[in-house]
Amino acid sequence: MKPSKPIVRDLGEFGLIERLRQRVSPGPSSVLVGIGDDVAVLRSTAGRLLLATCDTQVEGIHFLRHTVPPRCLGQRAAAVNLSDMAAMGGVPSWALVSLMLPDKTPVAWVDALYRGLTEGLERYGAALVGGNTARHPERIVVDVTLLGEVDEAKMVLRRGAHIGDFIVVTGSLGASKAGLECLRVAPFMAQEAARTLNETEDATLDELEMACGDAPSQGEAAQNLMAAVDRDTWMRAVHRYWVPEPRVQEGQVLAASGWVHAMIDVSDGFLGDLAHLCAASDVGAVIHVDAVPVDWACQGVAQALGQDPLLWALTGGEDYEILAAVHPEGLDHVLQAVAQQSAVTCHAVGRIVPRDQGIQCVRQDGSALEAHWGKAWDHFRQEAAS
Amino acid sequence: MKPSKPIVRDLGEFGLIERLRQRVSPGPSSVLVGIGDDVAVLRSTAGRLLLATCDTQVEGIHFLRHTVPPRCLGQRAAAVNLSDMAAMGGVPSWALVSLMLPDKTPVAWVDALYRGLTEGLERYGAALVGGNTARHPERIVVDVTLLGEVDEAKMVLRRGAHIGDFIVVTGSLGASKAGLECLRVAPFMAQEAARTLNETEDATLDELEMACGDAPSQGEAAQNLMAAVDRDTWMRAVHRYWVPEPRVQEGQVLAASGWVHAMIDVSDGFLGDLAHLCAASDVGAVIHVDAVPVDWACQGVAQALGQDPLLWALTGGEDYEILAAVHPEGLDHVLQAVAQQSAVTCHAVGRIVPRDQGIQCVRQDGSALEAHWGKAWDHFRQEAAS
Repeated sequence: MKPSKPIVRDLGEFGLIERLRQRVSPGPSSVLVGIGDDVAVLRSTAGRLLLATCDTQVEGIHFLRHTVPPRCLGQRAAAVNLSDMAAMGGVPSWALVSLMLPDKTPVAWVDALYRGLTEGLERYGAALVGGNTARHPERIVVDVTLLGEVDEAKMVLRRGAHIGDFIVVTGSLGASKAGLECLRVAPFMAQEAARTLNETEDATLDELEMACGDAPSQGEAAQNLMAAVDRDTWMRAVHRYWVPEPRVQEGQVLAASGWVHAMIDVSDGFLGDLAHLCAASDVGAVIHVDAVPVDWACQGVAQALGQDPLLWALTGGEDYEILAAVHPEGLDHVLQAVAQQSAVTCHAVGRIVPRDQGIQCVRQDGSALEAHWGKAWDHFRQEAAS
Repeated sequence: MKPSKPIVRDLGEFGLIERLRQRVSPGPSSVLVGIGDDVAVLRSTAGRLLLATCDTQVEGIHFLRHTVPPRCLGQRAAAVNLSDMAAMGGVPSWALVSLMLPDKTPVAWVDALYRGLTEGLERYGAALVGGNTARHPERIVVDVTLLGEVDEAKMVLRRGAHIGDFIVVTGSLGASKAGLECLRVAPFMAQEAARTLNETEDATLDELEMACGDAPSQGEAAQNLMAAVDRDTWMRAVHRYWVPEPRVQEGQVLAASGWVHAMIDVSDGFLGDLAHLCAASDVGAVIHVDAVPVDWACQGVAQALGQDPLLWALTGGEDYEILAAVHPEGLDHVLQAVAQQSAVTCHAVGRIVPRDQGIQCVRQDGSALEAHWGKAWDHFRQEAAS
């Protein structure tokens, strides 16, 4: 008989905390006290503003355990917070993680989650400095609080967009939605995608596959999807969904340019977050949908499933790109600055208009597109998306 | 037919956030941006260290909905974090609240929770500046992150206790455990206790009673308890359990005295937290149990239920008093300083000894008490305590 794997209950709360503490690097010299005392003690840099944000991943709502490897979930939990900070032009510094776990959670699962969390934070210069663990009867919950700093002169908020501003978005849209749909139709893709990550990153296959072993077997829809899109396409979609790339550097470049009036990150869907930015700025917007950067993986997967790629790009959610309102005279400067300092391209996709014009989506020929932004993600109105 | 009460699903996520935003005061001038943008923006005071802590209340683990009014739960969620900060001598400033809710949660319940949260924070000078809401299929989770500041010269950690130090504890111990036991034996006490809070504080009865209406009816054990203790006794116990009083001011006075080598707050039980302090400081401790300040409500309830009040005081948990290791030459000064600046009394209850002596509990006659500190609260090893 195989010996059973250790579970969280075997460690106890303090054993778990000690184990997590050992796995977190001591952090930069600004961390005077990290994990292991009552409070994390952080030395703030004089003259900069402190930023604080938090975001949660609830099992069954934000993720399903059998369709995301724990290491990717950790990276994702970091990324969604980093993205919020990026949308202010902020510099991420410190994170606290509040972890709720059923006592039967395998310790190896928690280890892989923490590996992903620390990787995801450290890649962008942030350190894990504290947190809390609690028992939860049935679900895993990962709640991350991220702290950071910003120069007051460089900070950009949601409010502040002016009529006439260009609407700019980083990178591409819709790939995350495509990944979600891939995993919904063909959950077994998770295992294959985890295997590929293993080839490209320094991880044990065990860490990546752990959660994906018991995925349901494939049906006809899954077979059709596999036949219609190539491996690179669905793999990109799944990876983008698992581990979004927060635009931390791009947010800082945009904010530092001096030409950006307002920013927000695209978490609820492009049109949904545009609506938030417009509401905060008391303006409307016209989007030229033919200029919207639809991700190629979104194109491929949506077409294979008989869906509209543009609709996914506009409303899909969880892309974690940055949406900015840019002074018209500064557009060229801003696009060039991001191109020079980042591998990510910015696209101008519309203009800010008076509030009474609402939010319109138009094609090149001037015809209006039926906008579905009212369906953007809302936790208390939609069913679980994954 | 009575119209049904609004539930969270009716508001949607953004409606809920907007509602919460309206109920939170704009806060002090140090809050440049509070709820409603991606990140809270906070101006830190030059020359002070930033402190950050988080703690979680999970329904069914840390509380049962039918035995705690939502407003008290909010105050409690604030208090447990404030207590962590108090144990460093810190000054609480800002809080973020991550809220997970089943979509059928009554909006009035959430309103009362937030009222309690803001009351509980503002009483100690802290402001609610941001957070996150997410849907949870079956349980309410309230996760609070608290930020604060401290002068580097005044900060006191868990580590640093010296051999020969006096062990000092604020206030009294065991009342919270007594309240928990009251509610376990006689859940209907919750409704009566809520009614009393209503008389003494500015609250609608609805807010306080909301959660307590459907408590199970009383049995024989409950009748015996009601007969054996007077109303003031069990009422105090229940109130102390619901709304602990974090020793924020006392923590600051202790830290500022310059005589305190180490501090921790009593959340896991006096002996459990003493063990944490001793481990961090690489020392042992002798506790003179006859000097331990057993709360009078703990005395009354424990005796009525045939339990040992001293055991409850030493191991009960959730008292949120402060435990400090004080330089022997500074003891008188420290006790006087707290007495002068606070209504709470400090008691010297033991001494720090070399590590190899472990943690001992002795009576006045020198006999040893069987210590049960190994049973102190541990989320992953114990069953739900409430």
